[in-house]
Amino acid sequence: MKKLINKPDDVVMEELQGIVVAHPDLVKVHFNPNFVVRADAPIKGKVGVISGGGSGHEPMHGGYVGYGMLDAACPGAVFTSPTPDQMLEATKAVNGGAGVLHIVKNYTGDIMNFEMAADLARAEGIEVVAIVTDDDVAVQDSLYTAGRRGVGSTVLAEKVCGAAAEQLRSLEQVADVCRKVKAWGRSMGMALTSCTVPHVGKPTFDLPEDEMEIGIGIHGEPGRTRMKVKSADEITEMLMEPIIKDLPFKHGDEVLLFVNSMGGTPPIELYIIYRKAYEIAQKSGLKVVRNLIGPYITSLEMAGCSITMLKMDDDLLKLWDFPVKTVGLRWGM
Amino acid sequence: MKKLINKPDDVVMEELQGIVVAHPDLVKVHFNPNFVVRADAPIKGKVGVISGGGSGHEPMHGGYVGYGMLDAACPGAVFTSPTPDQMLEATKAVNGGAGVLHIVKNYTGDIMNFEMAADLARAEGIEVVAIVTDDDVAVQDSLYTAGRRGVGSTVLAEKVCGAAAEQLRSLEQVADVCRKVKAWGRSMGMALTSCTVPHVGKPTFDLPEDEMEIGIGIHGEPGRTRMKVKSADEITEMLMEPIIKDLPFKHGDEVLLFVNSMGGTPPIELYIIYRKAYEIAQKSGLKVVRNLIGPYITSLEMAGCSITMLKMDDDLLKLWDFPVKTVGLRWGM
Repeated sequence: MKKLINKPDDVVMEELQGIVVAHPDLVKVHFNPNFVVRADAPIKGKVGVISGGGSGHEPMHGGYVGYGMLDAACPGAVFTSPTPDQMLEATKAVNGGAGVLHIVKNYTGDIMNFEMAADLARAEGIEVVAIVTDDDVAVQDSLYTAGRRGVGSTVLAEKVCGAAAEQLRSLEQVADVCRKVKAWGRSMGMALTSCTVPHVGKPTFDLPEDEMEIGIGIHGEPGRTRMKVKSADEITEMLMEPIIKDLPFKHGDEVLLFVNSMGGTPPIELYIIYRKAYEIAQKSGLKVVRNLIGPYITSLEMAGCSITMLKMDDDLLKLWDFPVKTVGLRWGM
Repeated sequence: MKKLINKPDDVVMEELQGIVVAHPDLVKVHFNPNFVVRADAPIKGKVGVISGGGSGHEPMHGGYVGYGMLDAACPGAVFTSPTPDQMLEATKAVNGGAGVLHIVKNYTGDIMNFEMAADLARAEGIEVVAIVTDDDVAVQDSLYTAGRRGVGSTVLAEKVCGAAAEQLRSLEQVADVCRKVKAWGRSMGMALTSCTVPHVGKPTFDLPEDEMEIGIGIHGEPGRTRMKVKSADEITEMLMEPIIKDLPFKHGDEVLLFVNSMGGTPPIELYIIYRKAYEIAQKSGLKVVRNLIGPYITSLEMAGCSITMLKMDDDLLKLWDFPVKTVGLRWGM
């Protein structure tokens, strides 16, 4: 294993120490339990929006803490759910009296711990609504999941829910925005290589030099099928077809098209994928009105990509365009 | 070779086709000769700022075209200098009557072709000043370079020169900003792995599973030394010490600290490096007043990082903070 780390056990702690000195204008880091929180939290009268999950998917979630997006993020160890006490303390830290939304990716450990944290927070008088993202059309159940996995839509949900909260909408209204993303977003990913979890020290899975895995999860969980590596255009078709069919997206729908790097795939390849995905969307009668292209929900250094399509309406468009100031996404300020 | 591409020869063309459909609000793409140009170019009375070089270093340079940064960028084939006709046509396309600045990384092919383009542009009555960045302290000469290589400072030069041009400073004034970055910026990089150029199809160099290369260039050119992989903290020391010694930075200097991924190194590792680099800067009496952390000048999917430190003064700070709206850097708008 070759990585720019010290001791594998210290990876997340030292990353957080880096964030402390890098972004004091944006965030504070709370240690033991660990969470990244907006420098100006809690904000009175504003719904708090928090998320969390295993580390290794950066910039998600810590990189999305800031104005117009998350109020706090709870990082677990690499590919390991955070603990209920992290989520509880984060919930308390962002509670401005208007309630707290938990955006939870559908992984069994995340759900269990977020549920426990929500119960504990409610016992302390904080109103909590949890929405589970489950946008991955690749497989019905998986290694760590009952039902579909929560992947790329989560990034989009954090953006638009963060905007809605910033506009001082109520907890139910912010939760409704999240429910809409859950209903209207679909994703699928693929991998050319595995990644290596630092404390494991060897690749999560073996993928021969001429093969790829279609429908992979963001922890390297098995997908739909392994096959010989195909061209970028063929791969894009294999990802786009199940996404478009699943919703189903309808002729004339306006969509946000999100082409994501799993970490090790450079921009030059993402734009080749985007070019074909855009063409397929157009041919399917969909109108791409917004996009996002880059490494936004990653699997350490895994090479590969995922595509997410989110059906948009006027409100989602306005929330997407709303100013945001985080390490991972920033515009309008 | 596993990459998300179609034919290796089509990589840059298809990437540009992706950019066309992805970012029509920001840029136009001119084909044959190829260059990416601001959607609103030329801007009357504003100095045009252009750069270019081999592809494979994205988001540099095409991702830095937009308000407050570059007016145009000329992409060559992967790791191959663009041609004089690309640079000439880009120069003409951004000429708003106030002259054009060429920011050129110190590679023999880039310099030769930019010189030829500048001569041709001058013959057509366009005032051109070229500044060569050469901030890499690792080696004096290299495989493709007489003198030091131009690396991370180039990104910073493009940002502050673009801001100065946006403020309608004169060509000589914008060039002076670039000269200051050239004088005050120093960089050094390292690699854990090679990368693979698409049309070559195999890794540029071999690096055993337990070795790293210190002082590597952004095309995988040899650096100072190969050695067994060390800890992130030791590696950071090996990069920071030559940088600090070289300028020399003085006690009390304000600096911008830029920790860059070569492409395949994820954010979690960059923050571990940043944490140590910040500590070393502080112990050396330097005050880190701005930073940049992420994949901004890459070598395809190479794993590794580089560190750049730029001494700042009030003017550079204001230019750094000036609004920018590009794919790769965006704030204030």
